[in-house]
Amino acid sequence: MRLFDRYLQSVKEIPEDRLDAFCAEIRSFLIKNVAKTGGHLASNLGVVELTVALHRVFDTASDRIVFDVGHQCYVHKLLTGRKDGFPNMRSFGGMSGFPKPGESVHDAFAAGHASTSVSAALGFARARTLLKEGYHCVAVLGDGALTGGLAYEGLNDAGQSGEPLIVVLNDNGMSIKKNVGGVARHLTKLRLQPRYFNAKRFTHRLLDPLPAGRAVARFLHRGKEFIKNAVIPGSLFAQMGFEYLGPTDGHDIKAVTNLFRQAATLKKPVLIHLVTQKGRGYAFSENNPSKYHGVKSFRVAYGVGDEAACDAFSRRFGDILTNLAETDRKIVAVTAAMQTGTGLDRFAERFPHRFFDVGIAESHAVTMAAAMAKQGLRPVVAVYSTFLQRAYDQIVHDVALQNLPVVFVVSHAGLCGEDGETHHGVFDPFFLASVPNLTLRTPCTAYELDRILMDALNGTGPVAIRIPKTPLPLPDLFLPARRCREGSDATILTYGGMTGVALETAERLTGTISVGVTSLTSLKPLPEVIPTEGEVFILEDNPGFLAGKVKGVAINTGDRFIPQGSEADLLRFCRLDAASVSSLIASAFGRDRRYG
Amino acid sequence: MRLFDRYLQSVKEIPEDRLDAFCAEIRSFLIKNVAKTGGHLASNLGVVELTVALHRVFDTASDRIVFDVGHQCYVHKLLTGRKDGFPNMRSFGGMSGFPKPGESVHDAFAAGHASTSVSAALGFARARTLLKEGYHCVAVLGDGALTGGLAYEGLNDAGQSGEPLIVVLNDNGMSIKKNVGGVARHLTKLRLQPRYFNAKRFTHRLLDPLPAGRAVARFLHRGKEFIKNAVIPGSLFAQMGFEYLGPTDGHDIKAVTNLFRQAATLKKPVLIHLVTQKGRGYAFSENNPSKYHGVKSFRVAYGVGDEAACDAFSRRFGDILTNLAETDRKIVAVTAAMQTGTGLDRFAERFPHRFFDVGIAESHAVTMAAAMAKQGLRPVVAVYSTFLQRAYDQIVHDVALQNLPVVFVVSHAGLCGEDGETHHGVFDPFFLASVPNLTLRTPCTAYELDRILMDALNGTGPVAIRIPKTPLPLPDLFLPARRCREGSDATILTYGGMTGVALETAERLTGTISVGVTSLTSLKPLPEVIPTEGEVFILEDNPGFLAGKVKGVAINTGDRFIPQGSEADLLRFCRLDAASVSSLIASAFGRDRRYG
Repeated sequence: MRLFDRYLQSVKEIPEDRLDAFCAEIRSFLIKNVAKTGGHLASNLGVVELTVALHRVFDTASDRIVFDVGHQCYVHKLLTGRKDGFPNMRSFGGMSGFPKPGESVHDAFAAGHASTSVSAALGFARARTLLKEGYHCVAVLGDGALTGGLAYEGLNDAGQSGEPLIVVLNDNGMSIKKNVGGVARHLTKLRLQPRYFNAKRFTHRLLDPLPAGRAVARFLHRGKEFIKNAVIPGSLFAQMGFEYLGPTDGHDIKAVTNLFRQAATLKKPVLIHLVTQKGRGYAFSENNPSKYHGVKSFRVAYGVGDEAACDAFSRRFGDILTNLAETDRKIVAVTAAMQTGTGLDRFAERFPHRFFDVGIAESHAVTMAAAMAKQGLRPVVAVYSTFLQRAYDQIVHDVALQNLPVVFVVSHAGLCGEDGETHHGVFDPFFLASVPNLTLRTPCTAYELDRILMDALNGTGPVAIRIPKTPLPLPDLFLPARRCREGSDATILTYGGMTGVALETAERLTGTISVGVTSLTSLKPLPEVIPTEGEVFILEDNPGFLAGKVKGVAINTGDRFIPQGSEADLLRFCRLDAASVSSLIASAFGRDRRYG
Repeated sequence: MRLFDRYLQSVKEIPEDRLDAFCAEIRSFLIKNVAKTGGHLASNLGVVELTVALHRVFDTASDRIVFDVGHQCYVHKLLTGRKDGFPNMRSFGGMSGFPKPGESVHDAFAAGHASTSVSAALGFARARTLLKEGYHCVAVLGDGALTGGLAYEGLNDAGQSGEPLIVVLNDNGMSIKKNVGGVARHLTKLRLQPRYFNAKRFTHRLLDPLPAGRAVARFLHRGKEFIKNAVIPGSLFAQMGFEYLGPTDGHDIKAVTNLFRQAATLKKPVLIHLVTQKGRGYAFSENNPSKYHGVKSFRVAYGVGDEAACDAFSRRFGDILTNLAETDRKIVAVTAAMQTGTGLDRFAERFPHRFFDVGIAESHAVTMAAAMAKQGLRPVVAVYSTFLQRAYDQIVHDVALQNLPVVFVVSHAGLCGEDGETHHGVFDPFFLASVPNLTLRTPCTAYELDRILMDALNGTGPVAIRIPKTPLPLPDLFLPARRCREGSDATILTYGGMTGVALETAERLTGTISVGVTSLTSLKPLPEVIPTEGEVFILEDNPGFLAGKVKGVAINTGDRFIPQGSEADLLRFCRLDAASVSSLIASAFGRDRRYG
């Protein structure tokens, strides 16, 4: 790691002939560290040269580089003095796995959801121009992020703005899984073309050996497709007002550096199309980049094992839905680039024609599902809680207003660990409960999930089902307000994933305070009767949805953004772990006894 | 109106040579009726031939036609047995000005927000294919709706789906105002081209009179622009996977009918590009289509007068902002195709370089504003409450998470009249209050608005300011909880526009019950001290945001969608008018006196 240590803070000084070796050292570092901490591996291995080239051309302390989605910022962090952060990356109190302006002046803009980068870069560019400053503005986005409507809104405005700004399209043909959509197909065509339009060769091909007239005729006969692809690669972007450069091999660091230099001199919007390989430089991830998109710790020599691809409750959901779909041909599943995480792998394999992954396009997923329901299908839209925020208006305007029976399976509800602020599923109870006609369900056992899903699929209106990570092994029972445990002094009132913490808390207090637990399976409508005994403590891993509706002592995350960390760390941090909650209840009773 | 009465229910039978006369009669009917009821005039005048052609080719009882935004459905309603609904269109209990499946089987999908139609048509098409049915699926969308990311998400998925479906692009170069963005520019270029690619003429131009070799060289020299525009009009859509037909004069009813017939036979996604004139057939609206986008009643012979372009409170906002911007060059204004309605006309004229209308792209508006704030500007994003639903995730993820000082001016908050269900601003308190770091303000006087806006522009975090229609003429005072009127028996607790109803209610009860009124200027954080006397009644023109936070008798719209009607009609319908509220309070006190 000689080059690495020498040039990490000064990539502009690396001799050209040492660049490839330097990049190789970066890859080794990334693989070794992510193998320990877990994180986003494949996407970072794909942007090594791209990021080094950015740092050779731009000054990230003043130039504003926006990494779309953010999880491909590891190389950038490494090159901006944060090497020592890697051993604790993504852990509680450690370095974030995403860009964080609070962490470094080199991080221009926070991100965690896709497709924001062009809008952000345009905002930067317009601010720069109005305030008469001189920095460069660069958006680095993957082709996956291009499936999101927000990216298009940004490109559409940026292209016509005339603002000098650079969009780097990091095109690896993947989002988490293989990419979808017409634009993806367009990019595929571009990738298959010669790197640059070679007018000479093109002319030659036309004029020789055929007589010119016949050549032209044949040329015309070949039709639109030919011309489109050979003459105007990137016309889609050109038509939006961008100067299109590329496609270029994104691992050819000299070529990429030159393109960046060239783009920096152009006083207009530029789009640079780089073709990269996701997972490059590590045989395991090159062969299966999807599997290495986000990983837990693993051994470098053996790669990632065959661990569960999704949480237990999500897998359960996918299994039930697949079973139900065997007998009900009206059931279809819709997701937005979250097939594996939401538990739909089995469904997608069994019913490929009834499975619709629309790409990173939650809004479209929901509106399309509304129309499907209108015409007699039973669509199930499975999306993480945090990403469903993108479809709030469509849930209101397209689904609920027409009272259409769309089932929303809201996975990753609650605190979601190492991805941090941008990924916790803590707002959905608030925005979903505000929607008329929609019911909001919160199973905490597999049996409850089965029943709720079946009811939802037989119902006449929209239903949202929050899915935490793991089902609890409680006896089969299905009630709007389930008394999970009896207790006479106090009741912990909760729902979903926090039911486990509530039960553990009650157990801890056995012999001291008799604590019962009531878990709700419906947040909207709220059960008419909620069985409680003694003082009520309302336990929630969000800012307190239920606490605003029901009387009791509120125990929740509070009205704030929650950082990254393991589930256990975060529960402790929010004082929502069994130890904290039981000491809170104990002290409440202690005070009551002293003064009551 | 002979043709009109004879063929209104059977447009398929109109002889070709009578079509233009028939369309002229439709226009007369529309102008006469909208002049009486108010409504969307210009966009409907633009789609007369288009809609007649749709009905000549398709059977709207089974074929699914989705009108994007919906407000251009008048001709469709006229042709589907709803002529008698026009005198009461948009009034309480009358025919809707938007498509309503509950109103007619011919209305395939409800709409009121833009850009949903392609997603909906694709959902219909996929349902049709899976359920082995045979109907056609058509989306009719304007070029304005194309600026929305949702339209792009839909096109991107539809293009590659292979599903037979037809997108009719009604291209009039306008949304409400002139259109913006790179795609709009692309369409403009297409419009300027010959209607169809004429291979023969093209070949001729190449080969004669120049020798072929030179012709090819010159041809190549002319470059990309030439080829792009002459050879592949619509390449943007073709690249997404659509068969592109057009551009064609959208008022040439025979040509349009033929295109629809042709498209209906193609077993793939088709995009038909029609060029239309917004406001066609009425001199006033042809000359000023923006002014005739949405109108109140007017006299046909004189046109619409110079009435206020926006509500009084919005104009006040625009005036203050423009004044503040004179001395603070960091202030910029951002909107999403709502310049006039949000009161920004004066600002846009005075500071064209600091005014950004991004088109129908609320998500992008918010993310871009976040970046502007990050780099030192003070962006004010002015959007109607109902459309801000489209940017919920961006408010959370791009603005609030980074605690950036973006000011949101949320106009049209509360019940919004004749546009009905899709346009009421009733959800914003719920989704905005769920966002950490964001404060939510509710002025009810001009002085409060001034103070709140100035504070927001000097603050360090995001602020949302709800703007009702009209400021109240109360004395200048600025408190988080303003005691507008003293009273000892009861207090009506309210905020924003409902403060007027509260005061009127208290006045009505004078001599019977002594009712005070407290109006909040902050919903988040809630004021620490809220002055009340006697029993508290919480009055809100939404499903009851404050009622969930403060103790008292809740008087609000309830958890449901509210229909169309005048403001007075809707308040009465919801029992939120002064008469209803005072009788409710009186009867509460009557009971109290009898039993208390």
